[in-house]
Amino acid sequence: MKTLIKNGTIVTAADTFRGDVLIDGETVAALGAGLQAPDARVLDARERMVIPGGIDVHTHLDMPFGGAFSTDDFQTGTIAAAFGGTTCIVDFAIQEAGGTLRRAFDTWQRKAAGKAVVDYGFHMILRAYSDAIGAEMAELVAQGVTSFKLFTAYPGVFYLDDGSIFRALGRARDIGALICVHAENGLVIAALVQEALARGDVAPRFHALTRPPLAEAEATRRVIRLAQLAGAPLYVVHLSAAEALDEVRAARAEGAQVMAETCPQYLFLSHENYEEPGFAGAKYVMSPPLRSAARQEELWRGLRNGELQAIATDHCPFNFASDKQLGREDFSKIPNGAPGIETRMSLTYDGGVAAGRFSVNRWVELTATAPARIFGLFPRKGTIAPGSDADIVIFNPGARTTISARTHHMNVDYNPYEGRTVTGVPETVLSRGEVIIENGRFLGKPGRGRYLKRAPQGAGEANPWKTVPQDASPRTR
Amino acid sequence: MKTLIKNGTIVTAADTFRGDVLIDGETVAALGAGLQAPDARVLDARERMVIPGGIDVHTHLDMPFGGAFSTDDFQTGTIAAAFGGTTCIVDFAIQEAGGTLRRAFDTWQRKAAGKAVVDYGFHMILRAYSDAIGAEMAELVAQGVTSFKLFTAYPGVFYLDDGSIFRALGRARDIGALICVHAENGLVIAALVQEALARGDVAPRFHALTRPPLAEAEATRRVIRLAQLAGAPLYVVHLSAAEALDEVRAARAEGAQVMAETCPQYLFLSHENYEEPGFAGAKYVMSPPLRSAARQEELWRGLRNGELQAIATDHCPFNFASDKQLGREDFSKIPNGAPGIETRMSLTYDGGVAAGRFSVNRWVELTATAPARIFGLFPRKGTIAPGSDADIVIFNPGARTTISARTHHMNVDYNPYEGRTVTGVPETVLSRGEVIIENGRFLGKPGRGRYLKRAPQGAGEANPWKTVPQDASPRTR
Amino acid sequence: MKTLIKNGTIVTAADTFRGDVLIDGETVAALGAGLQAPDARVLDARERMVIPGGIDVHTHLDMPFGGAFSTDDFQTGTIAAAFGGTTCIVDFAIQEAGGTLRRAFDTWQRKAAGKAVVDYGFHMILRAYSDAIGAEMAELVAQGVTSFKLFTAYPGVFYLDDGSIFRALGRARDIGALICVHAENGLVIAALVQEALARGDVAPRFHALTRPPLAEAEATRRVIRLAQLAGAPLYVVHLSAAEALDEVRAARAEGAQVMAETCPQYLFLSHENYEEPGFAGAKYVMSPPLRSAARQEELWRGLRNGELQAIATDHCPFNFASDKQLGREDFSKIPNGAPGIETRMSLTYDGGVAAGRFSVNRWVELTATAPARIFGLFPRKGTIAPGSDADIVIFNPGARTTISARTHHMNVDYNPYEGRTVTGVPETVLSRGEVIIENGRFLGKPGRGRYLKRAPQGAGEANPWKTVPQDASPRTR
Amino acid sequence: MKTLIKNGTIVTAADTFRGDVLIDGETVAALGAGLQAPDARVLDARERMVIPGGIDVHTHLDMPFGGAFSTDDFQTGTIAAAFGGTTCIVDFAIQEAGGTLRRAFDTWQRKAAGKAVVDYGFHMILRAYSDAIGAEMAELVAQGVTSFKLFTAYPGVFYLDDGSIFRALGRARDIGALICVHAENGLVIAALVQEALARGDVAPRFHALTRPPLAEAEATRRVIRLAQLAGAPLYVVHLSAAEALDEVRAARAEGAQVMAETCPQYLFLSHENYEEPGFAGAKYVMSPPLRSAARQEELWRGLRNGELQAIATDHCPFNFASDKQLGREDFSKIPNGAPGIETRMSLTYDGGVAAGRFSVNRWVELTATAPARIFGLFPRKGTIAPGSDADIVIFNPGARTTISARTHHMNVDYNPYEGRTVTGVPETVLSRGEVIIENGRFLGKPGRGRYLKRAPQGAGEANPWKTVPQDASPRTR
Repeated sequence: MKTLIKNGTIVTAADTFRGDVLIDGETVAALGAGLQAPDARVLDARERMVIPGGIDVHTHLDMPFGGAFSTDDFQTGTIAAAFGGTTCIVDFAIQEAGGTLRRAFDTWQRKAAGKAVVDYGFHMILRAYSDAIGAEMAELVAQGVTSFKLFTAYPGVFYLDDGSIFRALGRARDIGALICVHAENGLVIAALVQEALARGDVAPRFHALTRPPLAEAEATRRVIRLAQLAGAPLYVVHLSAAEALDEVRAARAEGAQVMAETCPQYLFLSHENYEEPGFAGAKYVMSPPLRSAARQEELWRGLRNGELQAIATDHCPFNFASDKQLGREDFSKIPNGAPGIETRMSLTYDGGVAAGRFSVNRWVELTATAPARIFGLFPRKGTIAPGSDADIVIFNPGARTTISARTHHMNVDYNPYEGRTVTGVPETVLSRGEVIIENGRFLGKPGRGRYLKRAPQGAGEANPWKTVPQDASPRTR
Repeated sequence: MKTLIKNGTIVTAADTFRGDVLIDGETVAALGAGLQAPDARVLDARERMVIPGGIDVHTHLDMPFGGAFSTDDFQTGTIAAAFGGTTCIVDFAIQEAGGTLRRAFDTWQRKAAGKAVVDYGFHMILRAYSDAIGAEMAELVAQGVTSFKLFTAYPGVFYLDDGSIFRALGRARDIGALICVHAENGLVIAALVQEALARGDVAPRFHALTRPPLAEAEATRRVIRLAQLAGAPLYVVHLSAAEALDEVRAARAEGAQVMAETCPQYLFLSHENYEEPGFAGAKYVMSPPLRSAARQEELWRGLRNGELQAIATDHCPFNFASDKQLGREDFSKIPNGAPGIETRMSLTYDGGVAAGRFSVNRWVELTATAPARIFGLFPRKGTIAPGSDADIVIFNPGARTTISARTHHMNVDYNPYEGRTVTGVPETVLSRGEVIIENGRFLGKPGRGRYLKRAPQGAGEANPWKTVPQDASPRTR
Repeated sequence: MKTLIKNGTIVTAADTFRGDVLIDGETVAALGAGLQAPDARVLDARERMVIPGGIDVHTHLDMPFGGAFSTDDFQTGTIAAAFGGTTCIVDFAIQEAGGTLRRAFDTWQRKAAGKAVVDYGFHMILRAYSDAIGAEMAELVAQGVTSFKLFTAYPGVFYLDDGSIFRALGRARDIGALICVHAENGLVIAALVQEALARGDVAPRFHALTRPPLAEAEATRRVIRLAQLAGAPLYVVHLSAAEALDEVRAARAEGAQVMAETCPQYLFLSHENYEEPGFAGAKYVMSPPLRSAARQEELWRGLRNGELQAIATDHCPFNFASDKQLGREDFSKIPNGAPGIETRMSLTYDGGVAAGRFSVNRWVELTATAPARIFGLFPRKGTIAPGSDADIVIFNPGARTTISARTHHMNVDYNPYEGRTVTGVPETVLSRGEVIIENGRFLGKPGRGRYLKRAPQGAGEANPWKTVPQDASPRTR
Repeated sequence: MKTLIKNGTIVTAADTFRGDVLIDGETVAALGAGLQAPDARVLDARERMVIPGGIDVHTHLDMPFGGAFSTDDFQTGTIAAAFGGTTCIVDFAIQEAGGTLRRAFDTWQRKAAGKAVVDYGFHMILRAYSDAIGAEMAELVAQGVTSFKLFTAYPGVFYLDDGSIFRALGRARDIGALICVHAENGLVIAALVQEALARGDVAPRFHALTRPPLAEAEATRRVIRLAQLAGAPLYVVHLSAAEALDEVRAARAEGAQVMAETCPQYLFLSHENYEEPGFAGAKYVMSPPLRSAARQEELWRGLRNGELQAIATDHCPFNFASDKQLGREDFSKIPNGAPGIETRMSLTYDGGVAAGRFSVNRWVELTATAPARIFGLFPRKGTIAPGSDADIVIFNPGARTTISARTHHMNVDYNPYEGRTVTGVPETVLSRGEVIIENGRFLGKPGRGRYLKRAPQGAGEANPWKTVPQDASPRTR
């Protein structure tokens, strides 16, 4: 079965050209102008961009939280992703307290199986580090889970001390895994939260005030230092504060192997959202919190300059009318998280490309190519090239749409960008050559998404920090 | 006439994949796996990389110097370039003292016509700035000369004062041109040279000692500041000192629109070459001079991290046995410059990719794609994509070769890398679909190279700093 | 003749203690508690501070300007200084275009003789640099003029190019002189002024808008670099912009021998003063101009942290009703300068000590001790110690006064701080043991002030950068 | 009883003058030239400097360690201090695990009573933080213990987690106490030590290799951040690595209230000492360890520029022949510490003043005045001014002496500076007016030293960061 996308403007991280994409089965067969394929289904891409499907490497679908779960499971979540132009996700499996990594891996495989409509991989969240866990990490790498997330935040839950982090970094270095870190100083934050509650400061905005930018900057710098000492690469998730970006930039200039992602919420929303009337501020309770608008432009600049490498979502939805209400009397009880898996591509096209902050190629790089490289999915995912999976979006850069919970496909009762009109709309979405979104309808089948075994660090081109010499026969898959 | 490059590993700034390139006439028609073209000439690229031809945006061919000329003209120089895997150059036309820009443009067109074997464009060197020159700049932009080079060095020859530089930056901003700068504090250097000669310090190494890294760092910072004040982008040519890179990095972090190139000589050679016996140090007399080896790795890191955007050569050969001898008794009389147009691609593959400092994609970006974008040649040049000129090199990443004046094709009697063995050899070279190098032989015809009208800044994707929004129909040429 | 100051709180750059100061003739004889001197005149300092008289190292008295002169001569200016608690000044003698330094020195000696009521020294402003001027510099040093001021501003008037500055720095290094620099990029400013006038932007605020902070930061960094290259110390006068302070801080951290002064106007006034109604903004036309209030606190912090070493005034008064009106139709014709010699000590006590920004010892250091050290007046001036000149102020730290042109003693028709109430008033002022201000009256005699031959750099403790080892018999004078 | 020191060169942090010091009883009565006091004992200071007695704010006398104690108690230790020109110490009392602060305070009072020959104060080391400890801290402040030391190092012994440190900082801020921190990442170090021992790397040099500079830089930055978040000042003890100084400098430029001390061992000894033959490297086992000589000059520069505020010793002696041998088979068992209380003043005069790195006034400031200010002892201690304690050293800046364990007065069998000849010798030492060292003999009596109740932060001039306005009657004691 062949598909021919005709007359589009094909955009990759490097190139922009008018032409056609020929898909044969699940992969791209050829790129060219005036390609012929008599037996192919033809998709007209005139006045459209043809881009690699987005890759969201930070999602929390069906995530257990206090007896319940984040409101999108792998079915609703990946359908929403597909509507938004994202054709691949990497979700976070979570080690249970005292549990094995294998068990968590199996649990998340079950969560996704039969539901996911796009391809998916897993990171693994570690709640502790020990030699036994280190041994299991190697087994997980063999299963394609090549990245592990640690927290300096959430004492008593996910918090790891510096010694454990340092040992995990050393282990990751040895087995070709990448450590991802949520960098906020959780112990300081706990003290600030306790002080705030003692003062009676219980409203949502105190969530942000008790998680100051310096608490993120400090932890970011610290874990970078641990990574430098371990000789390991590091990936900082959801960098939110310009103060933390300053630390990343300084460390990169010294040669530290540190990469960082930011998320649309830190580019478009700000501290002021916590001031919305009533309890509405709870919609924006996430960690790290929204920051001052005054330094947002620095994040955009970091995306342009290459100091930030990726844009992900930290999609973790909770309903406002129910879940979020748990914290009405105490901000620290508000479930942390917000929806975003569906809006990432349009928001960042609008604010990045349409607003002139960076080129369309850089947009593709930030939302697809670089995440694929960093997390061992490239070149199977993240680009449009012969041999790559035909995860492709036909994107209308001239169309405008207004974001709303009334029309979105995520399973959550509010949208943090409610009412915002953006330029740039994903119209047709292909996953491994199959059209799954067309004319505003989802055409795929739950469970069609496949688990992706990701390559370890240093294999091929997965990591921009890679230092293994090329040989004459670089692998293409 | 069609050509089919089969079974290579095709490498662009973003992608690496096994496959074929189909060329129809002068441009790329298709990329794919298993492409068929019964009527095409087939080039076997098994175990080879297929890369965009290199672009050298800093050459001085047939450059007048004290009554004579640099020893490579557009014929010998572009043949050597082709042997080295470079299929496009941008040479510096030079305003005569008191002369018009038009006249310089015409002179350089004549120099190239009938001789060049690969395509070429021109920058224009300004010796002064005035309203009249500003008016002429716009005319040159219309002719495709969209970048102008200024000097803070060489008082009495090319030196412009800060007021002239600032006005030229403002003018460039208004007409979509890019200012390039040779940044060394020429007035301080003149004083140091005078002091050295007065002390009797006449040997070649005093060339370097009188051009200290801080004189480059100072001028670099200064012109960046002028560009910030003018709201204009800036391109720093031949950045040589880590101290200057520090200034570029700091300014970019502030949001300054500054880009910089370095050259192989600053990555592979060092101050110690000036200590070679006898007068041999004169071979390395160029400006800026070679620097300490101790901080060279910082330049490599800048290339990897994106702080430096391009690698060019500053190719400007003079014979050691004759020209360079002019300065036997006085280093300040040694003609400034050294050959390099032929060795750039292999050297930087060897030191960059084979040595594991950056990926093969980044190498392509630094030597071809980014120069094309910055100087308005993209996407016609600088990539392998449908519609692009078929300037393509079949590169053997496993072959080794030893650099020597005995075997090089440049018209100069020495090679600064004499005896160095490098990994990575351009084997077959195509220019607009025509095989011009094959089996170690040049197959092209002098004069086949064409003049390239370059696009102004802000047109399409020429400039990474571009802030013009994409529309639904991005131009492809 | 002896004088005994009893029961004060004596404050030096290091110490704060309750006690007495015994003066014998012109110098301090003893410090102690309960000192006895039956024959001495007694001054009661109960509830007062006893501090070293202020030293203002940046004044322009009787300065020629367009056929006229700044409105304070050495009589009115030094009387105002004395009222303000300043007992020593260093004024700028100015080389005439083409004139000798000797002639300028003689001219300024004549200006001061018979008029000055406190002791004074001279810096010398160079309009050019040549070997002949270098030779004269050494003669001036022998005469006690051990500092020379250069400009990167005012092209056609005082502007020196980088080569001249570099040579002057080298000469100063060799003869123990200190180069002072007015650091703004005059050539860029000239272009901006021309553009503004061409646009019809003639109001006083365009004076500031055409002298942007980056033009100061650039020149500051540049001259620091030249000083580093010359191996010479450097003193930056009237640093006004936080951007320039950033450059000073960075250079000091690298080991550069750079010192800098700021002035009260940059701590208390701001860009907003240019928005005062009518032509009132002209009162604040000085160079560098007033800056944004937003970054003023950084200057205060620099004073506290030791990044800035001195506070001077750049006192250069012109009458608003007459002189300043010259620029009614063209800001570039407004005489540059404002009065301040009388208000420095109270303003900086108020904003520095009373506002809690730094200690009273640091205030004494910034306004007296450090200027004396830097400019070769210490320990004769700048402290209260046995053997030092009895230049002493009895200062009431609890009194408040309101600044006004109606009550000030400067010969100028406005005061830039009109109406500002400050805490801290100099009450009794002694110069070399003679009470010259008491009960709001001036008791001295014009001409009583003496010329001070200043010591060269590296002699004794003049310079914080001094590296000459102490011997067993450090000189005390 | 009066004493008159005649004809010396009196040096304070601000002043240098030839003259006399009159002492009446325990305090300074007057400073002057030609002072008369017929009944006074006269000490001739011709060709000598008269300086404030040194203050060593970092000592560990009679410190419990593994069942034994550091080898100097308050008698031998303070006698050695006096021989070395130090007349005041602040020693570290140590909370027992689970014990009260009061008990530790009483224990240390008993250790000192009847033994100390110079005046002394105490810091208190916290092993934990809780509300109860916070309450006790206020009681200690009332007893004159106004500084508390915390560790990020030594997990299981002194290590505090970030939450405890943050809460202690907040408490200190509220009660006018100063937090001192030993900043090394102890958890990372523990992991590195474990790795080293597992590899069989047991020699003394692995002590240093397992405590890398970045582990200090990281912890320094981290605790500064916690202090910024708490709004509290911070004092970093024994800063050893230039990488940590970089963090202090950057934070101070941002306005952080951070101060830091270094010690002579980090200025004069280096990593290479660990390579001494046999087990001799154990002599230098201390924490932080000795660092590379290559960056030592940066510490000297920090002392000159004001980025470092004090020089202390971390005196903590253990005998090489016995105590240090505990770690023969395992570097981690070597008692940490080395002697230095006696050599500080001569070493830093030699390397600082005689070598031309800073002025004699800055030397006095670093070794006496600033420590006194920072720790609430000023102006009673730390200067020579009327009313201050007559803790005075007559110092011979021209004499030379060779350091050796054979001649030193410390109770330890080796000297880390063995054989080093230094310029500058303390000859006569007075403590509260009593001559306790003269002609190489100790004349005092054990137990003559008194406990010093230190003032809280913000009282008077104790702290350079003080922001309390001066009133008309600043306290002198």
